[in-house]
Amino acid sequence: MKEQGVHEPAMDLELLFKPRSLAVIGISKDLGRGGGFIWWKIRSQGFPGRVFPVSRSCRELDGVPCFPSITDIRDPVDLAIAAVPAAAVERVLEECAQKGVKFVIVHAAGFAELGEAGKGLQERILDIARRGNIRLVGPNCMGLFCPESRLNTIVEVDPAEAEPGGVAFSGQSGWATEHFVVGGTARGLRFSKVISSGNQADLGFLDFLSYFGEDPSTRLICAYLEGLGEKGRAVLASARRIGRIKPVIVWKAGFSQAGARAALSHSGSVTGNRQVWQGAAKGAGIVQAEGFEDLMDLAVAFSSPPYPRGKRVGIMAEAGGGGISTADACEGLGLKVPVFSPDLQRRLSEFLKDYLPPFSGTSNPLDLVWLPRETALTICTRSLELMAEEVDAVIAMSYLPFVVPEMLTPFLKAVKALRDRLQLPVYLVPPYAAKAVEAMKTLTLAGIPAFPSFERAARAVAATFSWRAWAEREGN
Amino acid sequence: MKEQGVHEPAMDLELLFKPRSLAVIGISKDLGRGGGFIWWKIRSQGFPGRVFPVSRSCRELDGVPCFPSITDIRDPVDLAIAAVPAAAVERVLEECAQKGVKFVIVHAAGFAELGEAGKGLQERILDIARRGNIRLVGPNCMGLFCPESRLNTIVEVDPAEAEPGGVAFSGQSGWATEHFVVGGTARGLRFSKVISSGNQADLGFLDFLSYFGEDPSTRLICAYLEGLGEKGRAVLASARRIGRIKPVIVWKAGFSQAGARAALSHSGSVTGNRQVWQGAAKGAGIVQAEGFEDLMDLAVAFSSPPYPRGKRVGIMAEAGGGGISTADACEGLGLKVPVFSPDLQRRLSEFLKDYLPPFSGTSNPLDLVWLPRETALTICTRSLELMAEEVDAVIAMSYLPFVVPEMLTPFLKAVKALRDRLQLPVYLVPPYAAKAVEAMKTLTLAGIPAFPSFERAARAVAATFSWRAWAEREGN
Repeated sequence: MKEQGVHEPAMDLELLFKPRSLAVIGISKDLGRGGGFIWWKIRSQGFPGRVFPVSRSCRELDGVPCFPSITDIRDPVDLAIAAVPAAAVERVLEECAQKGVKFVIVHAAGFAELGEAGKGLQERILDIARRGNIRLVGPNCMGLFCPESRLNTIVEVDPAEAEPGGVAFSGQSGWATEHFVVGGTARGLRFSKVISSGNQADLGFLDFLSYFGEDPSTRLICAYLEGLGEKGRAVLASARRIGRIKPVIVWKAGFSQAGARAALSHSGSVTGNRQVWQGAAKGAGIVQAEGFEDLMDLAVAFSSPPYPRGKRVGIMAEAGGGGISTADACEGLGLKVPVFSPDLQRRLSEFLKDYLPPFSGTSNPLDLVWLPRETALTICTRSLELMAEEVDAVIAMSYLPFVVPEMLTPFLKAVKALRDRLQLPVYLVPPYAAKAVEAMKTLTLAGIPAFPSFERAARAVAATFSWRAWAEREGN
Repeated sequence: MKEQGVHEPAMDLELLFKPRSLAVIGISKDLGRGGGFIWWKIRSQGFPGRVFPVSRSCRELDGVPCFPSITDIRDPVDLAIAAVPAAAVERVLEECAQKGVKFVIVHAAGFAELGEAGKGLQERILDIARRGNIRLVGPNCMGLFCPESRLNTIVEVDPAEAEPGGVAFSGQSGWATEHFVVGGTARGLRFSKVISSGNQADLGFLDFLSYFGEDPSTRLICAYLEGLGEKGRAVLASARRIGRIKPVIVWKAGFSQAGARAALSHSGSVTGNRQVWQGAAKGAGIVQAEGFEDLMDLAVAFSSPPYPRGKRVGIMAEAGGGGISTADACEGLGLKVPVFSPDLQRRLSEFLKDYLPPFSGTSNPLDLVWLPRETALTICTRSLELMAEEVDAVIAMSYLPFVVPEMLTPFLKAVKALRDRLQLPVYLVPPYAAKAVEAMKTLTLAGIPAFPSFERAARAVAATFSWRAWAEREGN
């Protein structure tokens, strides 16, 4: 396998994510579970390649003939999805090797995560794969999701919602992977390639990271990791190289005693020390997520450049208390909420006095109190433009675009045009928690990163600023 | 006014929250804004008392005759809601005094938050109120929300959703108050009394805290504060006394330089030092919220007793990575995720082997991988019962009740019955971010606190445990 720290060209995983043909092995008549469910989902999602069902118990499904073994298929098969119990994986892999399959995804649990007994089985399947020139995903994983090829074995996203985008993800936990896809889609993220890597017996984060680094569709790389194993140094070296161009966001779990114990029995991973990881990851420019919600927030923030070039945050909100809590959060994160210069304050006040009753919050935060409908858009955009002279990013909240539906599109267009012209990152916080899920999705899909709270928007500013500063120091 | 540190019986605010009759002052023909909107909303929400519209420009609205001044109303008026501009407040208050109104809510901004000029006006209206024996809410506020009396001037909750509950709230920010009502309702919280206190020229947090303390409907008291002013000591003393019976949760904002500046121009508040507040609040047993989302989470957690009697957390989830991240979060908060005793592990394994394929996560976290539909409820409840022997609280996640709608009610019933019988707090994390908003609402309404992430559930365990330990030390 690869030596540590050596830069190799990324392995070509193209046929894993975009196979020309695939076989689903282990299908029973029950299309609601296991291989049957995977086969049915792949067929219903518009995958353009050929899909062969392999089943020992069924002769045909939905009018499609089943093959008793993958070796009975005459056409070439790029990818096999093995949805058979652990005990059958050796046999299936031998047959895949015989067939000349390039990639096999092994879903079954019951390997290294079970301890010594399972470890032996995992080593045996790895050995079969190597001898057969097969690259393995898993075992103990949920497979992949590749909107470009309309291929999804993670199976909880409506195909209509699964439009391709720039976010790649590699997850050692099926739960984290599934929820990143489902939750991310609901949040307005769009994906290039997602992989649930499980026990990482063969292909692991290092391989996926390298591939995503060279994948032209991928612009942002996210991961959930439990253990790095022996490849830790190589991962850090690759992350540092790739992360200058495509931010690499990692949520590393399993640092607690109980968490480390659980990781060992979950993906068979040894998780390591928190401080060691944090220091090493920081040096490699890895953006460190502090949990699932943070990972989502960061993916949203990094999916919409530009990023702030400095630490100065402007706050513009129809929410006095919201402005105060944003300021608290920003300063707590080492960002600055500078008092606007007397000249800027004078110009803001002069502009605003034609639109709003007298109010006092023009020093930053700019507290807009409550905007009149007819002039809200003018007030927001002109205020942003003025603030841009003295800040590097803006956190903003306005009720109107979310209360008056016909205002939303013009609002988004105007803010986005301004953001791009001024290169001023704008982070939005839609009002009303109840409706915010839909609003955040709309905003993020439109290219404006949106967050459920002012505190989380502040965190996004801090993270994107830090990454940009790191990438510039690294010579970008 | 009140002396610091002296315990007085709570002021009787009954007629503020449950007036027999009220007047809305300052109505134009436009029922979409200002006084007209408040009047229209109050009428449509089923408020049982009499509502008098007072308007200088309209003679009647919707067939209801308007009064040019409150003094023209013959019947007694308990509460006046003044929706007039700042410049008209003095006149309106003089008329309210003449009429013998007991409470006046002053919505207008343009008082102490504007600095010196506004301070003078605020002192003048306070003087009129005192001379006229009127108690003021505001100015610069959004009024109140009292589901028991179907009275709502905060106006963003569907009356059908506004069922009474046990949560009271006092907020110095209109935004925080409105969002706590709207977001809290969507989260499954139900309120007793909510007040937007604004500049707190007269009635302030101390008054509302004392009243909520004696209000039989209120079981939990929440607040958003900017400044405590001179009444800080009295607030702490009251919180300590009341908080032993009814937890007092406070989100205090305005600690940053920019936040303090903004608070001064928002509610005219001087916000003070973070460390001083934190130490004092801790001593008084105040549960300290760290932001808006945390305030909501804590309200949810504390709205559903019992609370944990110790630090030992059991984790049960169909989510290996979720279990690991829960363990990380718990230990990070000083909670314990103990390894189950060999005997308990043996009994768990023996029970589970009849239902699930062999798996390894029985030491805590209990990783249930993926439950079969037919036996999911049995597995969950029996596992909880066994875990209860060695832990003080459980954080749990199961897909099935949320994927198979007909399972939800039996699942909630079973978990709640078990929780109450064993006095074992159970904190749920529904799967799938996209649907979690609705699921959390259902759960919390059913009396089982639910959270958007494992990390936030862990935080809720830590907070409820700490409060219980404090209350017991105080002699409960």
